[in-house]
Amino acid sequence: MEKKNIVFIAKSLDGYIAGKNGELDWLFSVPNPDNVETGFGPLMDEIDAVVMGKNTFDFLLGYEGDWPYAKPVFVLSNSLKTVPERFADKVSLLSGNPPEVLKTIHARGCYKLYIDGGRTIQSFLELDLIDELRITTIPILLGGGAPLFGDLSAALMFEHVKTEVFLGALVQSWYRRKR
Amino acid sequence: MEKKNIVFIAKSLDGYIAGKNGELDWLFSVPNPDNVETGFGPLMDEIDAVVMGKNTFDFLLGYEGDWPYAKPVFVLSNSLKTVPERFADKVSLLSGNPPEVLKTIHARGCYKLYIDGGRTIQSFLELDLIDELRITTIPILLGGGAPLFGDLSAALMFEHVKTEVFLGALVQSWYRRKR
Repeated sequence: MEKKNIVFIAKSLDGYIAGKNGELDWLFSVPNPDNVETGFGPLMDEIDAVVMGKNTFDFLLGYEGDWPYAKPVFVLSNSLKTVPERFADKVSLLSGNPPEVLKTIHARGCYKLYIDGGRTIQSFLELDLIDELRITTIPILLGGGAPLFGDLSAALMFEHVKTEVFLGALVQSWYRRKR
Repeated sequence: MEKKNIVFIAKSLDGYIAGKNGELDWLFSVPNPDNVETGFGPLMDEIDAVVMGKNTFDFLLGYEGDWPYAKPVFVLSNSLKTVPERFADKVSLLSGNPPEVLKTIHARGCYKLYIDGGRTIQSFLELDLIDELRITTIPILLGGGAPLFGDLSAALMFEHVKTEVFLGALVQSWYRRKR
Protein backbone atom coordinates (compact mmCIF):
# COMPACT_ATOMS: atom_id res chain seq x y z
CA MET A 1 0.00 0.00 0.00
CA GLU A 2 1.17 3.51 -0.80
CA LYS A 3 2.03 5.38 2.35
CA LYS A 4 1.41 9.10 2.37
CA ASN A 5 1.46 11.77 5.06
CA ILE A 6 -0.56 14.84 4.14
CA VAL A 7 -0.71 18.22 5.86
CA PHE A 8 -3.91 20.19 5.26
CA ILE A 9 -4.03 23.40 7.24
CA ALA A 10 -4.86 27.09 7.11
CA LYS A 11 -2.40 29.79 8.07
CA SER A 12 -2.32 33.57 8.15
CA LEU A 13 -0.27 35.53 5.60
CA ASP A 14 2.48 35.67 8.21
CA GLY A 15 2.42 31.93 8.88
CA TYR A 16 0.44 31.53 12.09
CA ILE A 17 -2.16 28.83 12.76
CA ALA A 18 -3.51 30.51 15.92
CA GLY A 19 -3.36 34.07 17.21
CA LYS A 20 -1.36 35.48 20.12
CA ASN A 21 -4.00 34.27 22.60
CA GLY A 22 -4.85 31.10 20.72
CA GLU A 23 -7.61 32.86 18.69
CA LEU A 24 -9.01 30.98 15.73
CA ASP A 25 -11.82 33.41 14.81
CA TRP A 26 -9.72 34.91 11.96
CA LEU A 27 -9.98 31.50 10.22
CA PHE A 28 -13.60 32.43 9.58
CA SER A 29 -12.94 36.04 8.55
CA VAL A 30 -13.81 35.12 4.95
CA PRO A 31 -17.56 34.33 4.94
CA ASN A 32 -18.60 31.06 3.30
CA PRO A 33 -22.43 31.23 3.44
CA ASP A 34 -22.90 28.57 0.72
CA ASN A 35 -20.43 26.15 2.30
CA VAL A 36 -18.14 26.09 -0.71
CA GLU A 37 -15.96 22.96 -0.47
CA THR A 38 -12.38 24.00 0.28
CA GLY A 39 -10.80 20.57 0.47
CA PHE A 40 -11.67 19.03 3.81
CA GLY A 41 -14.42 16.73 2.43
CA PRO A 42 -12.32 15.18 -0.37
CA LEU A 43 -9.40 14.84 2.06
CA MET A 44 -11.60 12.82 4.46
CA ASP A 45 -12.53 10.50 1.56
CA GLU A 46 -8.89 10.13 0.56
CA ILE A 47 -7.26 9.34 3.90
CA ASP A 48 -7.33 6.30 6.16
CA ALA A 49 -6.79 8.12 9.45
CA VAL A 50 -6.08 11.44 11.16
CA VAL A 51 -2.95 11.95 13.29
CA MET A 52 -2.83 14.89 15.69
CA GLY A 53 -1.09 16.10 18.80
CA LYS A 54 -2.48 16.74 22.24
CA ASN A 55 -3.04 20.49 21.69
CA THR A 56 -5.29 19.90 18.70
CA PHE A 57 -7.13 17.17 20.60
CA ASP A 58 -7.60 19.49 23.59
CA PHE A 59 -9.19 21.99 21.23
CA LEU A 60 -11.56 19.27 19.94
CA LEU A 61 -12.53 18.30 23.48
CA GLY A 62 -13.91 21.79 23.98
CA TYR A 63 -15.51 21.97 20.53
CA GLU A 64 -19.30 21.96 20.65
CA GLY A 65 -20.09 21.08 17.02
CA ASP A 66 -20.39 17.66 15.42
CA TRP A 67 -17.33 15.43 15.45
CA PRO A 68 -15.57 16.51 12.25
CA TYR A 69 -13.73 13.33 11.28
CA ALA A 70 -15.10 10.42 9.26
CA LYS A 71 -11.95 8.35 9.83
CA PRO A 72 -10.09 6.97 12.87
CA VAL A 73 -8.13 9.57 14.84
CA PHE A 74 -4.76 8.88 16.46
CA VAL A 75 -3.76 11.33 19.17
CA LEU A 76 -0.04 11.52 19.91
CA SER A 77 0.74 12.17 23.55
CA ASN A 78 3.27 10.92 26.02
CA SER A 79 1.26 12.27 28.99
CA LEU A 80 -2.40 11.50 28.21
CA LYS A 81 -3.48 8.07 29.51
CA THR A 82 -7.18 7.91 28.60
CA VAL A 83 -9.68 9.71 26.40
CA PRO A 84 -13.17 10.71 27.58
CA GLU A 85 -15.76 7.90 27.19
CA ARG A 86 -17.65 9.70 24.40
CA PHE A 87 -14.53 9.62 22.19
CA ALA A 88 -13.56 6.03 22.99
CA ASP A 89 -14.76 4.62 19.64
CA LYS A 90 -13.23 7.45 17.61
CA VAL A 91 -9.85 8.13 19.13
CA SER A 92 -6.75 6.02 19.90
CA LEU A 93 -3.91 7.34 22.03
CA LEU A 94 -0.35 6.67 20.91
CA SER A 95 2.95 7.59 22.48
CA GLY A 96 6.44 7.56 21.00
CA ASN A 97 8.34 9.38 18.30
CA PRO A 98 6.94 9.87 14.76
CA PRO A 99 8.58 6.74 13.21
CA GLU A 100 7.27 4.61 16.08
CA VAL A 101 3.72 5.91 15.86
CA LEU A 102 3.74 5.57 12.07
CA LYS A 103 4.77 1.92 12.42
CA THR A 104 1.84 1.29 14.77
CA ILE A 105 -0.65 3.16 12.57
CA HIS A 106 0.49 1.33 9.41
CA ALA A 107 0.19 -1.98 11.25
CA ARG A 108 -3.46 -1.10 11.88
CA GLY A 109 -4.05 -0.81 8.13
CA CYS A 110 -3.96 2.99 7.87
CA TYR A 111 -1.53 4.26 5.21
CA LYS A 112 -2.82 7.58 3.94
CA LEU A 113 -2.66 9.93 6.88
CA TYR A 114 -3.80 13.48 7.55
CA ILE A 115 -1.20 14.98 9.88
CA ASP A 116 -2.64 17.86 11.90
CA GLY A 117 -1.49 20.37 14.52
CA GLY A 118 1.50 22.68 14.54
CA ARG A 119 3.89 20.75 16.76
CA THR A 120 3.00 17.40 15.20
CA ILE A 121 3.56 18.80 11.70
CA GLN A 122 6.86 20.33 12.80
CA SER A 123 8.13 17.08 14.35
CA PHE A 124 7.20 15.13 11.19
CA LEU A 125 8.88 17.72 8.93
CA GLU A 126 12.06 17.65 10.98
CA LEU A 127 12.27 13.92 10.18
CA ASP A 128 11.27 14.50 6.54
CA LEU A 129 8.11 12.45 7.01
CA ILE A 130 5.67 14.78 5.20
CA ASP A 131 4.85 13.93 1.58
CA GLU A 132 2.27 16.60 0.75
CA LEU A 133 1.50 20.09 1.99
CA ARG A 134 -1.91 21.59 1.27
CA ILE A 135 -1.80 25.06 2.72
CA THR A 136 -4.59 27.61 2.67
CA THR A 137 -3.55 31.22 3.25
CA ILE A 138 -6.06 33.55 4.90
CA PRO A 139 -5.57 37.23 3.90
CA ILE A 140 -4.62 38.57 7.31
CA LEU A 141 -1.38 39.46 9.09
CA LEU A 142 -1.80 38.33 12.69
CA GLY A 143 1.52 39.75 13.85
CA GLY A 144 2.17 36.92 16.31
CA GLY A 145 0.84 33.59 17.55
CA ALA A 146 1.47 29.88 17.07
CA PRO A 147 3.59 29.35 13.95
CA LEU A 148 2.80 26.61 11.42
CA PHE A 149 6.45 25.91 10.67
CA GLY A 150 9.41 25.60 13.01
CA ASP A 151 13.16 25.33 12.76
CA LEU A 152 14.54 22.53 10.62
CA SER A 153 18.04 21.02 10.57
CA ALA A 154 17.94 20.94 6.78
CA ALA A 155 15.97 22.73 4.06
CA LEU A 156 13.29 20.69 2.25
CA MET A 157 12.42 21.25 -1.42
CA PHE A 158 8.85 20.78 -2.62
CA GLU A 159 7.19 20.64 -6.04
CA HIS A 160 4.19 22.84 -6.67
CA VAL A 161 1.19 20.68 -7.64
CA LYS A 162 -1.62 23.22 -7.94
CA THR A 163 -3.02 26.44 -6.55
CA GLU A 164 -6.70 27.32 -6.27
CA VAL A 165 -8.38 30.45 -4.95
CA PHE A 166 -11.58 29.87 -2.97
CA LEU A 167 -14.20 32.53 -2.25
CA GLY A 168 -12.02 35.08 -4.01
CA ALA A 169 -9.81 35.23 -0.93
CA LEU A 170 -8.37 31.91 0.25
CA VAL A 171 -5.26 30.81 -1.65
CA GLN A 172 -4.75 27.07 -1.38
CA SER A 173 -1.49 25.61 -2.70
CA TRP A 174 -0.65 21.94 -2.88
CA TYR A 175 3.00 20.85 -2.75
CA ARG A 176 4.64 17.45 -3.05
CA ARG A 177 7.98 16.69 -1.39
CA LYS A 178 10.81 16.54 -3.94
CA ARG A 179 13.15 13.77 -2.84
CA MET B 1 -1.48 62.23 -6.62
CA GLU B 2 -2.38 58.78 -5.37
CA LYS B 3 0.09 57.59 -2.78
CA LYS B 4 0.79 53.89 -2.65
CA ASN B 5 3.35 51.75 -0.84
CA ILE B 6 3.89 48.38 -2.47
CA VAL B 7 5.80 45.36 -1.17
CA PHE B 8 7.10 43.00 -3.86
CA ILE B 9 9.18 40.19 -2.46
CA ALA B 10 9.87 36.46 -2.57
CA LYS B 11 9.73 34.25 0.49
CA SER B 12 10.16 30.57 1.26
CA LEU B 13 7.14 28.41 2.15
CA ASP B 14 8.01 29.02 5.79
CA GLY B 15 8.22 32.78 5.38
CA TYR B 16 11.95 33.57 5.16
CA ILE B 17 13.55 36.04 2.76
CA ALA B 18 17.10 34.81 3.43
CA GLY B 19 18.49 31.57 4.81
CA LYS B 20 20.15 30.92 8.17
CA ASN B 21 23.47 32.25 6.87
CA GLY B 22 21.96 34.94 4.67
CA GLU B 23 21.79 32.59 1.64
CA LEU B 24 19.75 33.76 -1.31
CA ASP B 25 20.61 30.92 -3.73
CA TRP B 26 17.27 29.18 -3.03
CA LEU B 27 15.56 32.17 -4.69
CA PHE B 28 16.91 30.78 -7.95
CA SER B 29 16.07 27.14 -7.22
CA VAL B 30 13.32 27.30 -9.87
CA PRO B 31 15.09 27.68 -13.24
CA ASN B 32 13.87 30.49 -15.50
CA PRO B 33 15.93 29.96 -18.69
CA ASP B 34 13.55 32.03 -20.86
CA ASN B 35 13.44 34.93 -18.42
CA VAL B 36 9.69 34.70 -17.90
CA GLU B 37 8.47 38.02 -16.46
CA THR B 38 7.44 37.51 -12.84
CA GLY B 39 6.45 41.05 -12.01
CA PHE B 40 9.60 43.07 -11.42
CA GLY B 41 9.55 44.79 -14.85
CA PRO B 42 5.93 46.03 -14.66
CA LEU B 43 6.54 47.10 -11.05
CA MET B 44 9.48 49.27 -12.15
CA ASP B 45 7.22 50.92 -14.76
CA GLU B 46 4.51 51.50 -12.18
CA ILE B 47 6.48 53.03 -9.33
CA ASP B 48 8.14 56.40 -8.84
CA ALA B 49 10.87 55.24 -6.47
CA VAL B 50 12.33 52.38 -4.44
CA VAL B 51 12.63 52.56 -0.64
CA MET B 52 14.95 50.13 1.12
CA GLY B 53 16.86 49.67 4.33
CA LYS B 54 20.59 49.51 4.90
CA ASN B 55 20.79 45.69 4.80
CA THR B 56 19.28 45.52 1.34
CA PHE B 57 21.55 48.34 0.18
CA ASP B 58 24.60 46.56 1.62
CA PHE B 59 23.64 43.53 -0.43
CA LEU B 60 23.42 45.69 -3.56
CA LEU B 61 26.86 47.19 -2.88
CA GLY B 62 28.32 43.71 -3.20
CA TYR B 63 26.18 42.74 -6.19
CA GLU B 64 28.17 42.39 -9.40
CA GLY B 65 25.34 42.52 -11.96
CA ASP B 66 23.78 45.57 -13.60
CA TRP B 67 22.05 48.08 -11.33
CA PRO B 68 18.53 46.64 -11.19
CA TYR B 69 16.44 49.77 -10.63
CA ALA B 70 15.10 52.11 -13.29
CA LYS B 71 13.81 54.56 -10.69
CA PRO B 72 15.36 56.63 -7.86
CA VAL B 73 16.33 54.64 -4.78
CA PHE B 74 15.96 55.95 -1.22
CA VAL B 75 18.04 54.14 1.37
CA LEU B 76 16.83 54.48 4.95
CA SER B 77 19.64 54.56 7.47
CA ASN B 78 20.38 56.48 10.61
CA SER B 79 24.07 55.49 10.54
CA LEU B 80 25.13 55.72 6.88
CA LYS B 81 26.45 59.19 5.97
CA THR B 82 27.51 58.81 2.34
CA VAL B 83 27.04 56.41 -0.56
CA PRO B 84 29.91 55.28 -2.81
CA GLU B 85 30.58 57.67 -5.71
CA ARG B 86 29.32 55.25 -8.36
CA PHE B 87 25.84 55.24 -6.76
CA ALA B 88 25.66 58.99 -6.17
CA ASP B 89 23.26 59.65 -9.08
CA LYS B 90 21.03 56.69 -8.22
CA VAL B 91 20.71 56.63 -4.45
CA SER B 92 19.60 59.14 -1.81
CA LEU B 93 20.16 58.55 1.89
CA LEU B 94 17.36 59.36 4.29
CA SER B 95 17.14 59.09 8.04
CA GLY B 96 14.12 59.22 10.31
CA ASN B 97 11.02 57.16 10.99
CA PRO B 98 8.73 55.91 8.18
CA PRO B 99 6.27 58.86 8.28
CA GLU B 100 9.19 61.33 8.16
CA VAL B 101 10.91 59.64 5.23
CA LEU B 102 7.60 59.31 3.36
CA LYS B 103 7.00 63.04 3.78
CA THR B 104 10.43 63.77 2.28
CA ILE B 105 9.98 61.30 -0.59
CA HIS B 106 6.50 62.64 -1.46
CA ALA B 107 7.90 66.20 -1.41
CA ARG B 108 10.36 65.06 -4.08
CA GLY B 109 7.45 64.04 -6.33
CA CYS B 110 7.58 60.28 -5.72
CA TYR B 111 4.21 58.82 -4.68
CA LYS B 112 4.10 55.20 -5.79
CA LEU B 113 6.79 53.44 -3.83
CA TYR B 114 8.30 49.97 -3.87
CA ILE B 115 9.15 49.18 -0.24
CA ASP B 116 11.91 46.57 0.02
CA GLY B 117 13.84 44.70 2.68
CA GLY B 118 12.59 42.75 5.69
CA ARG B 119 13.11 45.29 8.45
CA THR B 120 11.87 48.20 6.35
CA ILE B 121 8.73 46.28 5.39
CA GLN B 122 8.19 45.31 9.04
CA SER B 123 8.54 48.89 10.28
CA PHE B 124 6.10 50.14 7.63
CA LEU B 125 3.59 47.38 8.45
CA GLU B 126 3.75 48.14 12.16
CA LEU B 127 2.57 51.68 11.29
CA ASP B 128 0.01 50.36 8.78
CA LEU B 129 1.78 52.11 5.92
CA ILE B 130 1.68 49.28 3.38
CA ASP B 131 -1.12 49.37 0.78
CA GLU B 132 -0.25 46.35 -1.35
CA LEU B 133 1.56 43.08 -0.80
CA ARG B 134 2.80 41.12 -3.82
CA ILE B 135 4.35 38.00 -2.41
CA THR B 136 5.96 35.20 -4.37
CA THR B 137 6.31 31.88 -2.56
CA ILE B 138 9.25 29.63 -3.50
CA PRO B 139 8.52 25.91 -2.91
CA ILE B 140 11.12 25.29 -0.23
CA LEU B 141 11.10 25.07 3.56
CA LEU B 142 14.30 26.77 4.73
CA GLY B 143 13.76 25.93 8.39
CA GLY B 144 15.26 29.20 9.64
CA GLY B 145 16.64 32.54 8.48
CA ALA B 146 15.54 36.15 8.13
CA PRO B 147 11.74 36.34 8.37
CA LEU B 148 9.69 38.48 5.99
CA PHE B 149 7.15 39.41 8.65
CA GLY B 150 7.63 40.44 12.26
CA ASP B 151 5.51 41.04 15.32
CA LEU B 152 2.69 43.55 14.98
CA SER B 153 0.74 45.38 17.69
CA ALA B 154 -2.48 44.78 15.77
CA ALA B 155 -3.65 42.34 13.10
CA LEU B 156 -4.06 43.75 9.56
CA MET B 157 -6.71 42.46 7.15
CA PHE B 158 -6.01 42.34 3.43
CA GLU B 159 -8.13 41.69 0.34
CA HIS B 160 -6.95 39.13 -2.16
CA VAL B 161 -6.50 40.76 -5.56
CA LYS B 162 -5.09 37.92 -7.69
CA THR B 163 -2.88 34.88 -7.66
CA GLU B 164 -0.70 33.68 -10.53
CA VAL B 165 1.61 30.68 -10.78
CA PHE B 166 4.84 31.28 -12.68
CA LEU B 167 7.08 28.53 -14.10
CA GLY B 168 4.72 25.94 -12.62
CA ALA B 169 6.28 26.57 -9.23
CA LEU B 170 6.22 30.17 -8.02
CA VAL B 171 2.93 31.23 -6.46
CA GLN B 172 2.51 34.99 -6.55
CA SER B 173 -0.40 36.53 -4.65
CA TRP B 174 -1.36 40.17 -4.65
CA TYR B 175 -3.19 41.64 -1.67
CA ARG B 176 -4.62 45.09 -0.99
CA ARG B 177 -4.93 46.47 2.54
CA LYS B 178 -8.55 46.45 3.73
CA ARG B 179 -9.05 49.59 5.78
